[in-house]
Amino acid sequence: MTKVAILMGSDSDEEIMKGSWEALEEFGVDYEVRVLSAHRTPDAAIKFAKDARKNGISVIIAGAGGAAHLPGVLAANTTVPVIGVPISSGILDGLDALLSIAQMPRGIPVATVAVDNSRNAGLLALRILSLFNEKIHNQYEQMVSNFKEQVLKKDKSMKAKHSKGA
Amino acid sequence: MTKVAILMGSDSDEEIMKGSWEALEEFGVDYEVRVLSAHRTPDAAIKFAKDARKNGISVIIAGAGGAAHLPGVLAANTTVPVIGVPISSGILDGLDALLSIAQMPRGIPVATVAVDNSRNAGLLALRILSLFNEKIHNQYEQMVSNFKEQVLKKDKSMKAKHSKGA
Amino acid sequence: MTKVAILMGSDSDEEIMKGSWEALEEFGVDYEVRVLSAHRTPDAAIKFAKDARKNGISVIIAGAGGAAHLPGVLAANTTVPVIGVPISSGILDGLDALLSIAQMPRGIPVATVAVDNSRNAGLLALRILSLFNEKIHNQYEQMVSNFKEQVLKKDKSMKAKHSKGA
Amino acid sequence: MTKVAILMGSDSDEEIMKGSWEALEEFGVDYEVRVLSAHRTPDAAIKFAKDARKNGISVIIAGAGGAAHLPGVLAANTTVPVIGVPISSGILDGLDALLSIAQMPRGIPVATVAVDNSRNAGLLALRILSLFNEKIHNQYEQMVSNFKEQVLKKDKSMKAKHSKGA
Amino acid sequence: MTKVAILMGSDSDEEIMKGSWEALEEFGVDYEVRVLSAHRTPDAAIKFAKDARKNGISVIIAGAGGAAHLPGVLAANTTVPVIGVPISSGILDGLDALLSIAQMPRGIPVATVAVDNSRNAGLLALRILSLFNEKIHNQYEQMVSNFKEQVLKKDKSMKAKHSKGA
Amino acid sequence: MTKVAILMGSDSDEEIMKGSWEALEEFGVDYEVRVLSAHRTPDAAIKFAKDARKNGISVIIAGAGGAAHLPGVLAANTTVPVIGVPISSGILDGLDALLSIAQMPRGIPVATVAVDNSRNAGLLALRILSLFNEKIHNQYEQMVSNFKEQVLKKDKSMKAKHSKGA
Amino acid sequence: MTKVAILMGSDSDEEIMKGSWEALEEFGVDYEVRVLSAHRTPDAAIKFAKDARKNGISVIIAGAGGAAHLPGVLAANTTVPVIGVPISSGILDGLDALLSIAQMPRGIPVATVAVDNSRNAGLLALRILSLFNEKIHNQYEQMVSNFKEQVLKKDKSMKAKHSKGA
Amino acid sequence: MTKVAILMGSDSDEEIMKGSWEALEEFGVDYEVRVLSAHRTPDAAIKFAKDARKNGISVIIAGAGGAAHLPGVLAANTTVPVIGVPISSGILDGLDALLSIAQMPRGIPVATVAVDNSRNAGLLALRILSLFNEKIHNQYEQMVSNFKEQVLKKDKSMKAKHSKGA
Repeated sequence: MTKVAILMGSDSDEEIMKGSWEALEEFGVDYEVRVLSAHRTPDAAIKFAKDARKNGISVIIAGAGGAAHLPGVLAANTTVPVIGVPISSGILDGLDALLSIAQMPRGIPVATVAVDNSRNAGLLALRILSLFNEKIHNQYEQMVSNFKEQVLKKDKSMKAKHSKGA
Repeated sequence: MTKVAILMGSDSDEEIMKGSWEALEEFGVDYEVRVLSAHRTPDAAIKFAKDARKNGISVIIAGAGGAAHLPGVLAANTTVPVIGVPISSGILDGLDALLSIAQMPRGIPVATVAVDNSRNAGLLALRILSLFNEKIHNQYEQMVSNFKEQVLKKDKSMKAKHSKGA
Repeated sequence: MTKVAILMGSDSDEEIMKGSWEALEEFGVDYEVRVLSAHRTPDAAIKFAKDARKNGISVIIAGAGGAAHLPGVLAANTTVPVIGVPISSGILDGLDALLSIAQMPRGIPVATVAVDNSRNAGLLALRILSLFNEKIHNQYEQMVSNFKEQVLKKDKSMKAKHSKGA
Repeated sequence: MTKVAILMGSDSDEEIMKGSWEALEEFGVDYEVRVLSAHRTPDAAIKFAKDARKNGISVIIAGAGGAAHLPGVLAANTTVPVIGVPISSGILDGLDALLSIAQMPRGIPVATVAVDNSRNAGLLALRILSLFNEKIHNQYEQMVSNFKEQVLKKDKSMKAKHSKGA
Repeated sequence: MTKVAILMGSDSDEEIMKGSWEALEEFGVDYEVRVLSAHRTPDAAIKFAKDARKNGISVIIAGAGGAAHLPGVLAANTTVPVIGVPISSGILDGLDALLSIAQMPRGIPVATVAVDNSRNAGLLALRILSLFNEKIHNQYEQMVSNFKEQVLKKDKSMKAKHSKGA
Repeated sequence: MTKVAILMGSDSDEEIMKGSWEALEEFGVDYEVRVLSAHRTPDAAIKFAKDARKNGISVIIAGAGGAAHLPGVLAANTTVPVIGVPISSGILDGLDALLSIAQMPRGIPVATVAVDNSRNAGLLALRILSLFNEKIHNQYEQMVSNFKEQVLKKDKSMKAKHSKGA
Repeated sequence: MTKVAILMGSDSDEEIMKGSWEALEEFGVDYEVRVLSAHRTPDAAIKFAKDARKNGISVIIAGAGGAAHLPGVLAANTTVPVIGVPISSGILDGLDALLSIAQMPRGIPVATVAVDNSRNAGLLALRILSLFNEKIHNQYEQMVSNFKEQVLKKDKSMKAKHSKGA
Repeated sequence: MTKVAILMGSDSDEEIMKGSWEALEEFGVDYEVRVLSAHRTPDAAIKFAKDARKNGISVIIAGAGGAAHLPGVLAANTTVPVIGVPISSGILDGLDALLSIAQMPRGIPVATVAVDNSRNAGLLALRILSLFNEKIHNQYEQMVSNFKEQVLKKDKSMKAKHSKGA
């Protein structure tokens, strides 16, 4: 049970959401990508959520914009952790989606990440999976370490390029 | 078919939502008041929406705060007009609920009224019912006329109380 | 009495508002499109509202940006349901218009939809009309059903395109 | 023609609006205080605006909260300067009213002051009147001078109370 | 004394502010356009404000963006009415400038107009001037009347172009 | 490894954060509650994060207000999932904290829940733990089921209390 | 030259601003507290700024609410560093003041601290003074160290009070 | 000890941050430019802050977007003044970064400047350095004076170009 599901309400969000599965791909984790809408296909979305655990889904990532109901509707129909990605297709650069996802009522949590930051949703899923999968854990540590090296390299080059004086 | 349903996700919203049924009561219109949550009782809420029209419901009023999904979830499961009342139980005086209700995606409209203004939801339902019920229409015209009289009376009294000079 | 009126304060809003009449066109419902401003032609706008019901208008859709007064001014002069479309021509992606339309005082409701989402205003009008017109109701159910099919088809194709693992 | 009219949509705003007439009272300027609503008594409000100039009104002050249409509706029906006072009875401490008053479209200006700051509306009216009334001008200069003295006196006392060191 | 001064803090605001003097030009009113900054040339800006009345300036229009202090600083140094134009050069489409101009403290009013709406500042100045200049008043009434005609003409054309049904 | 750590930057947040450990307590899950500040005790906070996994912590919950850096600083120093609770001790009802926690850059995810909603942070931790602990999973399903029963009971009582007509 | 000036526009801000001089008091640094308004006593405020450096002031702290111009006006008239404290006396919990202070144009910096956080203004002044005063530097290091001890002590007590399990 | 350090979390912010070192360059002040991230290289960033004073850094400028933690994390690990530049790479034109930087808790001040206004960060650093460096002070006075001349020249040209009437 280490499969991640990635849902979006419309295929027009494919470009923004792909950061999620690219992260999973890098780690060799199984995933399925779905287009299911809380508003246009409520029955299918809810059935998906209800069956998620028994279908071997351990984390659900859901992206939505505007009155972004999809992550909350899924979370209301499963006990699997749901990660919500607010998408900036509405107003105020996605503040509408951020509030519609983050401000869930007591009892039904959704793990909200930054607006349009689907990669972080993928990484959060990987952190969860890493709790019971040492291989993912090791890969994650390696990725963090690589990141650090890249920044330090850029630091060296920026320092050389711009600094002045002893 | 002139019954109105009023839904809220939690009975703690009773005080804020009662403006809706008080308006309907003044007009002698049938209504039912329900506690159904998009998150805690999704199946019951969706079943309610799906059966609404055949159960003689012509308008649904739904109040919700925070990530206010109830009106949108109902609208996704019925063709009956749904009126959403944003409730200020979240943050920013209910701006979170206002955006979560108003910013519905193309295809699934919700008729949003002002934050905490459940009376206006009731009055909007009455305007809709008045289209095919002349009695309600006449009562509504009378109410508007009474309102006007009250304001004009207050105007007279305020003018007498505070003005100065010819 | 199944005619819908669509008003805007300036013909520069034509492109944004056309979603309203395109929806009505699909359903074969009569409509008239008007340019009347709460600020530049207040008398004509108010006269329009006062005569709406007797002219056979059952729903008024009004789009406005900035300090968007048109929907509220119309609603104050008729008992017909008024649907307001906030237009993003002001600041904060139309938050000014959303607040100017949604935050109507007790007594004068306006049914507010999402910013620039004139199609949803048309669909909300159709939901209202469907209450006393079975043909529209059937068409609406069909449209919802078509929507669902389209999403499910896209779901199938997205799932096939991107998923990985059993 | 040095009379100022002060309008509010509801007598519940009397306390917040009284700063306007208190300022005028200090200067001995004539004023009338009215309760007229853009929504509940549109005809009376518009008639007031249309007749304002011929009734000797040189400035109109209008306070409103929420979807605050009163100042704009008045400005659309007169050429007399209209000063709008946003009232914090809506949400976001009156940001809804501030935007509903300030964001007027090209062609119809409203002079907006700070939220709930009705005294400044009165003072702005006095600045306008002072342009053609030397007595008001002199009084205004005196008031400004008095203000300055008060602040300087408080400065002296605060400096003595709290400072430390040479 | 019917001259209007138009100030901006930087000549980069010329394009946005020109709506002010174009309006005055249409009415044949005298004006002067200045670049004076509350921050870069505080002495010159303050001297301008202090001398305004004696230099025959009856209204000051000041445009500013970001932490928009110019209108307030001018208003603190003159008794002439000051109209502030928030400019959208800062963040949140000029909400920073709107708040920096509108939220003046008790005692120092600034007449705020919509973000970037310099034409309305010009029109507001003209409304003030019209109080003691019948020619301007008549021109203003004519302009309003022309506006109305234009809208009604567009209404006719839009109605003909898009309506459907009897 | 099923221990949850709950951190706050100041013991003044104890009341708001206690919802987290109350949820864990109901499920019999081990937890530790800590006061560690990203700003006042950066070394201790970072050491905590770095040692978390080897100390048997599987989820970290961190509450913070204002410029809420604690969750992000912890997430930058561990690969364990970090859940952030924005606390409304700053301005705009905690919008500052919500943005400071949710808007994390690419590479370092924090799972953000609603403002002041520490119970949902606890429940989200339990959803994560339930992935590899069937007992927690069963308890969670039971809790959801109990919730539903409570709402349905309130629905019955509300319907009986307020509805009118057949 | 290690004196700090603390200014506020009105003595009603004394309570909020006192955190500044309490911090300075703890360090034995000289300070003077003044009431000078950018709007009511512009001449005195500007004269203060112009003379600051020659009067031995090395840092100016200025608190202001609403359209908070004081810090910016001072900064425009001195080269001494100016620290601005936004005060929440306006709307949106002081967001108006925060934007009015922080969003200064290119060329005139103001060092903005958190809303109502006058203590941090005092501490920032002390950091500046510590650059050329080793005694202040040592005291500051000691204060930071004491802070840390206090938090760690609370951490110990919280951990003992609430944790559960090994 | 008159060296300034300029840090950013990612080299993609180079263009926005360069205003800082350009200002320092004009004054002949030493500086070093670094890429160090609070999230990707926390150890290096903290070590930098801890060693800053002993490495001769007198002011640190740090730019960051979104959940902008870098300035606060640095300030928590040094007693040197830290100037934060909010970068508009997140949402709401950088309001997220402005709040994440400005809203620091009691005890850890960050001197916040306007969104994307790195030049003002450089100028603020120069104001601080000028307190104990008379040459920088004189240069700063000269720069202010040049600015004034430029504005006055533009004023003259604008006045000539656009004014009308005596």
